[in-house]
Amino acid sequence: MATLNPGEFSQNIQLGIEVVATLAFALSGILEGARKRLDAVGVCVVAFLAAFGGGTLRDLLLDVRPFFWVKYIELLWAVFVLCIVAMLFMRQRHFKFTEKAILWPDTLGLGLFTAAGVFASIMAGMPSLVAVFMGVITGVFGGVLRDIVCNEIPQAFKDHRPYAICAFFGGWAYIGLRELDNPAYVNMLGCVLVTVGLRAFAVWKNVRLPEWRN
Amino acid sequence: MATLNPGEFSQNIQLGIEVVATLAFALSGILEGARKRLDAVGVCVVAFLAAFGGGTLRDLLLDVRPFFWVKYIELLWAVFVLCIVAMLFMRQRHFKFTEKAILWPDTLGLGLFTAAGVFASIMAGMPSLVAVFMGVITGVFGGVLRDIVCNEIPQAFKDHRPYAICAFFGGWAYIGLRELDNPAYVNMLGCVLVTVGLRAFAVWKNVRLPEWRN
Amino acid sequence: MATLNPGEFSQNIQLGIEVVATLAFALSGILEGARKRLDAVGVCVVAFLAAFGGGTLRDLLLDVRPFFWVKYIELLWAVFVLCIVAMLFMRQRHFKFTEKAILWPDTLGLGLFTAAGVFASIMAGMPSLVAVFMGVITGVFGGVLRDIVCNEIPQAFKDHRPYAICAFFGGWAYIGLRELDNPAYVNMLGCVLVTVGLRAFAVWKNVRLPEWRN
Repeated sequence: MATLNPGEFSQNIQLGIEVVATLAFALSGILEGARKRLDAVGVCVVAFLAAFGGGTLRDLLLDVRPFFWVKYIELLWAVFVLCIVAMLFMRQRHFKFTEKAILWPDTLGLGLFTAAGVFASIMAGMPSLVAVFMGVITGVFGGVLRDIVCNEIPQAFKDHRPYAICAFFGGWAYIGLRELDNPAYVNMLGCVLVTVGLRAFAVWKNVRLPEWRN
Repeated sequence: MATLNPGEFSQNIQLGIEVVATLAFALSGILEGARKRLDAVGVCVVAFLAAFGGGTLRDLLLDVRPFFWVKYIELLWAVFVLCIVAMLFMRQRHFKFTEKAILWPDTLGLGLFTAAGVFASIMAGMPSLVAVFMGVITGVFGGVLRDIVCNEIPQAFKDHRPYAICAFFGGWAYIGLRELDNPAYVNMLGCVLVTVGLRAFAVWKNVRLPEWRN
Repeated sequence: MATLNPGEFSQNIQLGIEVVATLAFALSGILEGARKRLDAVGVCVVAFLAAFGGGTLRDLLLDVRPFFWVKYIELLWAVFVLCIVAMLFMRQRHFKFTEKAILWPDTLGLGLFTAAGVFASIMAGMPSLVAVFMGVITGVFGGVLRDIVCNEIPQAFKDHRPYAICAFFGGWAYIGLRELDNPAYVNMLGCVLVTVGLRAFAVWKNVRLPEWRN
């Protein structure tokens, strides 16, 4: 660690973050796919969409190539193995696919992907507002794709519980910390903490977004 | 105006057109999101998708960067402010979210985006047919994304009232005017007039597309 | 044929394959759109999405331009004509839009697009696993887009009959044949045969993917 320059260190942090976030979102996809009673292939596809959808869309928009799953194809294999293990495990255990089970991997993935998204956008020279949006897209879009394919209005837009908005504030936390000349990994950590913290608080206290009156 | 060369002038026209079209479509997204009773965040997301979806897809396909919302991030802020103002306003006024309310901003956005889309594609050296398709995609796809996220069959494909087809003829009007060596802003104006005119006529006279017999 | 070098020959094969696959998928889109009782424009859009969606997504991901439908705009016209002819024909004949009618063009398109997708990815220097995934995406995604627009859970993920998985094995057949230093058109042919064969066998024998137990 002492021999790494800060840039490399942040890059490694980003890599670590993307790996954990990818697996967390893949798990959320598997659970959602199982809940919707898709077949084995459908569950895998939803897992892949949830895991790689947000980051791929971000890289498409930023025009960054190769995609991180082309650069680290081990990730594709890892999600594959996760799918198979999860299926075998769930077959044996009569696992209940409650919405709660999806909650924690989903929250973790949201925070991690948001941080990775803001970081990648800043690296690509985007202005702050765009970087924050890219962070939100990276964090939220995997789940949105997952829900669209499962033919549901994306949970993120409908359940009146703060979700995308947590990523939004997390993104601004990144920008704020960056203004104070912190190294990138501090900014990322702050972004993850704010996003996950807000989301966990919202779920815990059952905070609700304002509704439309009739 | 006299000091601008025609190319610059047309670019400015395109900019003005995209701004108005973006706001018109954002409004249509807000109304649709409210009608589907999404939460505040969902309404914003649908507004952003409707406003920026078509143009972003066009730029992705044409491989044009930066996106117009990266180049003019004021637009992102403008849609943001529009969302917040609209929400406050609608809360106060017990506004009825009828399909009709969406009709006019939607029609205007359709015409303006189609013109901007054909112009951008011609600039990128696309052949006429592709440029027309890109115009239709720019005009129609924001609304399609809006409807997909709201979990509806896109209105554009289902309501048996001419919509995409108006943009299609509008696009050919652009190509026709261009063949006659008109400056780009004339072509764009013609495209907008034909598209909006056809759509308005279709709504007014309740023209219906041929249905499938059983 | 004797005067073509193998690379050119394979390119021509790829072109021929994409043309047939495009028309086959366009037909599947027309039938699906008609079954969902979309209007004439909606049927055309679904046909275009089914026909060009998979290949366009692949080219977007591989960052290959121009798209094959920009390079060969005759294809756009061909799908257009197909739509119009199909509509006239179906109006006259009181055609029944059964799921079976979609089955054969769909299976053929799946095999052909998968082969074209793997070939294009290998050409773009992708590693084997990514090339296989790109093949599956090219083959499956047109149909997925078709179903999403028609507001259905994509048939590919839900019907418990092997579909994407046939393309997956077909893709590996390509990679395997390539390892044996076969020319590209042999690999493509093998991929098509394996994919279509597996799919046809699955439909014929009514093979079902494992289901989730409760």
